[in-house]
Amino acid sequence: MKNTLILDGTVVAEDMKQATKEKVDQLKNQGITPCLATILVGDDPSSETYVRMKGNACEKLGMESRRIHLPETTTTEELLQTIATLNTDDRVHGILLQHPVPPQIDERAAFEAIDLAKDVDGVTSWGFGQTALNFGAYPSCTPAAIMAILAYYNLDVEGKHAVVVGRSPILGKPVSMLLLNANATVTTCHSKTQDLAAIVSQGDIVVAAVGKPHFIKGEWIKKGAIVIDAGYNPGNIGDADYDECAKHASAITPVPGGVGPVTIATLLSQTVIAAEKTSAVNESA
Amino acid sequence: MKNTLILDGTVVAEDMKQATKEKVDQLKNQGITPCLATILVGDDPSSETYVRMKGNACEKLGMESRRIHLPETTTTEELLQTIATLNTDDRVHGILLQHPVPPQIDERAAFEAIDLAKDVDGVTSWGFGQTALNFGAYPSCTPAAIMAILAYYNLDVEGKHAVVVGRSPILGKPVSMLLLNANATVTTCHSKTQDLAAIVSQGDIVVAAVGKPHFIKGEWIKKGAIVIDAGYNPGNIGDADYDECAKHASAITPVPGGVGPVTIATLLSQTVIAAEKTSAVNESA
Repeated sequence: MKNTLILDGTVVAEDMKQATKEKVDQLKNQGITPCLATILVGDDPSSETYVRMKGNACEKLGMESRRIHLPETTTTEELLQTIATLNTDDRVHGILLQHPVPPQIDERAAFEAIDLAKDVDGVTSWGFGQTALNFGAYPSCTPAAIMAILAYYNLDVEGKHAVVVGRSPILGKPVSMLLLNANATVTTCHSKTQDLAAIVSQGDIVVAAVGKPHFIKGEWIKKGAIVIDAGYNPGNIGDADYDECAKHASAITPVPGGVGPVTIATLLSQTVIAAEKTSAVNESA
Repeated sequence: MKNTLILDGTVVAEDMKQATKEKVDQLKNQGITPCLATILVGDDPSSETYVRMKGNACEKLGMESRRIHLPETTTTEELLQTIATLNTDDRVHGILLQHPVPPQIDERAAFEAIDLAKDVDGVTSWGFGQTALNFGAYPSCTPAAIMAILAYYNLDVEGKHAVVVGRSPILGKPVSMLLLNANATVTTCHSKTQDLAAIVSQGDIVVAAVGKPHFIKGEWIKKGAIVIDAGYNPGNIGDADYDECAKHASAITPVPGGVGPVTIATLLSQTVIAAEKTSAVNESA
């Protein structure tokens, strides 16, 4: 499509980080350094990269990054113990457990063990429920990043038909709920969906959250639709066939440089909000 | 439609209550009487009727019904205190707070105060989150009843396009999640949805959960679709125009006698499951 708007996640992320940096400075003036604890279990190279990026992003804004690296052989019990310690550590404001963990670990049990007040990555079922019911908790970062991109570019959501392809607990399901709360009509699709092309082609907003490279085809995209690509596959390849989708879309996120940077900025922002709440508690105490 | 299948909720409910009654008898042999506490605040006649129906249904199965009636002027604090007392009362296995409460009460705060283990009516955000992520908690009773009706009549859900009209925290949102977990493609509609008729007409399964009498029109229903009417408006009128919808549908729930009786049977069933868990805890202690 001529004049397709490129939804530049790096610009949205910079804007968000600027606002977050100002809050960090204010908190540090009060003697509080916002701290994100990251837990990496095992030696998956991609996971190591993600955790390092998140830690570095924290430190660039003057936040503290507490990096915990547990061995590949860690048991569920040991991981739960680590989380319990972080839950009660007043200097830690947010906890991120890098997904995936080695197969011997009950990942869901580990996610659930994170204190809701420190669940800045939005992985607990309680956080999911509060997000879905539109109050309280920190949403999962990627879904929140998608909403932030739509808001930054003043793209209307209300009354639009949003088609989400994917139903994972931290992406497809929560972004469906956030879009619903923003008054979109929401269709959630997945591997059992029949005639996916016909359904995607109805979307005014299409969210690709399926984890398969170039899965969403250009000819599926309605003329003028907004395409949000939350995929991030090996080789920096998105879930949408960018070149072909861009021919039909009115706006589209690139990969890389789309949803990814905003996801990290959201994580930092939510960690700082958690630190601000601590600060408010301290003042009222 | 010739030979439209009437999805008879009274039959499904009787089947469910039969199974529940057997569990009640077993528990009573162990000295445990499953107990549902119902809380009614104020004097709304419909709410009084609903609460009485639920209490009577308990007693018919040999369960205990603890009926708490608080005055119209009850404060949030007083209601929270009542819930806290029931949370710690070992003889109470399930807690139901009848919706709606008088306007001076923070209903969400009251729902959230119910112990997850006793949230047999599925109203807490935590319970919602666990239901949505497909583990653990008791789902809201009406959504669970809808799934039970579909299962009882062996109606396929996987791969079907389900259109849910309504997005309330205890009906539209959770039934969307249950249908999604059962591998339907799910579209959730609401008051801001544009061209609702066109969207409903795509549904292989249509769930009417909007709370407006005869809102869903017969001409919206695809030939052969399944229509589930979760509405219950004054005068025993459903959300779907039954006579007209039945002309197109392959199967439909009546109102009354459709979802309603199964909702109550689900409440009893979930209360007894909660009592069984207590029993298991006692045995292992």
